[in-house]
Amino acid sequence: MSSTSDLHPFDEALQLAPVGEHRFDGRTTPNYWNMIGPFGGITAATMLQAALQHPERLGDPIALTVNFAGPIAEGPFEIEAVPSRTNRSTQHWTLTVRQNGAVTTTGSAVFAVRRDTWSSPEAVMPEAPPADTLPPIGGFAPVKWLSAYDIRAVRGAKPGTTPGTEHPDSITEFWLRDAPARTPDYAAIASWCDSFYPRIFLKRAGFVPAGTVSLTTYFHADADTLAALGDQHVLGCARAQVFRQGFFDQTAQIWSAAGELLATSHQIVYYKE
Amino acid sequence: MSSTSDLHPFDEALQLAPVGEHRFDGRTTPNYWNMIGPFGGITAATMLQAALQHPERLGDPIALTVNFAGPIAEGPFEIEAVPSRTNRSTQHWTLTVRQNGAVTTTGSAVFAVRRDTWSSPEAVMPEAPPADTLPPIGGFAPVKWLSAYDIRAVRGAKPGTTPGTEHPDSITEFWLRDAPARTPDYAAIASWCDSFYPRIFLKRAGFVPAGTVSLTTYFHADADTLAALGDQHVLGCARAQVFRQGFFDQTAQIWSAAGELLATSHQIVYYKE
Repeated sequence: MSSTSDLHPFDEALQLAPVGEHRFDGRTTPNYWNMIGPFGGITAATMLQAALQHPERLGDPIALTVNFAGPIAEGPFEIEAVPSRTNRSTQHWTLTVRQNGAVTTTGSAVFAVRRDTWSSPEAVMPEAPPADTLPPIGGFAPVKWLSAYDIRAVRGAKPGTTPGTEHPDSITEFWLRDAPARTPDYAAIASWCDSFYPRIFLKRAGFVPAGTVSLTTYFHADADTLAALGDQHVLGCARAQVFRQGFFDQTAQIWSAAGELLATSHQIVYYKE
Repeated sequence: MSSTSDLHPFDEALQLAPVGEHRFDGRTTPNYWNMIGPFGGITAATMLQAALQHPERLGDPIALTVNFAGPIAEGPFEIEAVPSRTNRSTQHWTLTVRQNGAVTTTGSAVFAVRRDTWSSPEAVMPEAPPADTLPPIGGFAPVKWLSAYDIRAVRGAKPGTTPGTEHPDSITEFWLRDAPARTPDYAAIASWCDSFYPRIFLKRAGFVPAGTVSLTTYFHADADTLAALGDQHVLGCARAQVFRQGFFDQTAQIWSAAGELLATSHQIVYYKE
């Protein structure tokens, strides 16, 4: 394998080697390490990447679901990306990550050929000062992957640090791009949708053991729209609807600076206590 | 097979016969027929049912994703429900529907053992007059499955009928229960989350060819909470965030009359023109 040192760290993390029909070998990278495993966003992006680079690929991503079934340890893993059904303009993928023979992550993706139609935005981007008028936030959690992002706080970008004081809402808004800057593609969008720390940290003003169980992202922009973003920041917004019996939901939006809704995402997150 | 005539039509539609390891035989029923195939909600409910009645089941549903890959014709189908990973308190399922050997539908589910924790509602139920003060709406679409529901209109419960007049929003709110009334369980919730007609019918005030591509539902209530609802209506709310290049998203909430958020759901829908 040739040196990957000239690659952007995100592209390095996405490197997959075909090893048989529908199978690709990858490995974890230190840049996207979370506390006890890889950042979920990088796992989602890498699973999507397997379908993106599959020789039978049709069209572009519309939907991606990733189920975090078990831990991924540092080192190699295998992704199986099976085109379970290909229609005239849509294609359905079944995705599985295995490590040492055990299933760690399952998922599915839908790809489609986009075409111009009547269109209408309904959701409205929250008002926010321009990204370049705000300083990047420093790291606030003992996780490596946060350094892979340039984040400019608008609201709720860091959780409070006084457990016992309940925050009135779970809303985070921040400007976001890769660090170093990188023009986004579908894999980047998949990763960005998981860049919001667990809403319960904000709501309860402190650390609570928590982890994403299942993550679904819908892609609303075509490849040209993403390419035209260049190294601009996008506005990320996240919030929960309910915390109950060990699980909460977390919805997210990714907006272009010009106000286009690029992606919407939803996850269900386990928490303890 | 014994007669199923005494069963509620929903329970009849959910009837699955084990036919081998992880495999169950089912069949479409006329009560839940859509225009050219079964109502997506009944397909989602039946796929969940396969995991619910699987002998290796652990806990209760937390998340369900269903990808509508191809049409299902009238008649028998087979569901494969494989427990792809079982942990101490969570279990991940891979779900596949096949008809005549072809994959029609794929999906996944996460089950977990719920336990009491700190909890917090964040979303707030919209105000609505009580269900019993509102008349049931008549059918408005040439689909059979609408008759399987008792729907009381609050807002946007029927699309307009004048194509070319764009509706200012895509919000529907209605009270909903099965018809005849039936105490909900997880399968009912899975079905209810798909009971909202495509948002584009409301936005564009008329019929547009459209179909759900992928549907994800998060379950926020435990089995006791569902059982205690009895035959009360629930409040269903749906709206889109963006319509672009042949696809729109649709988010939904299912509320108990007492204001508990029972489920949240998201889908991405194909549309033509």
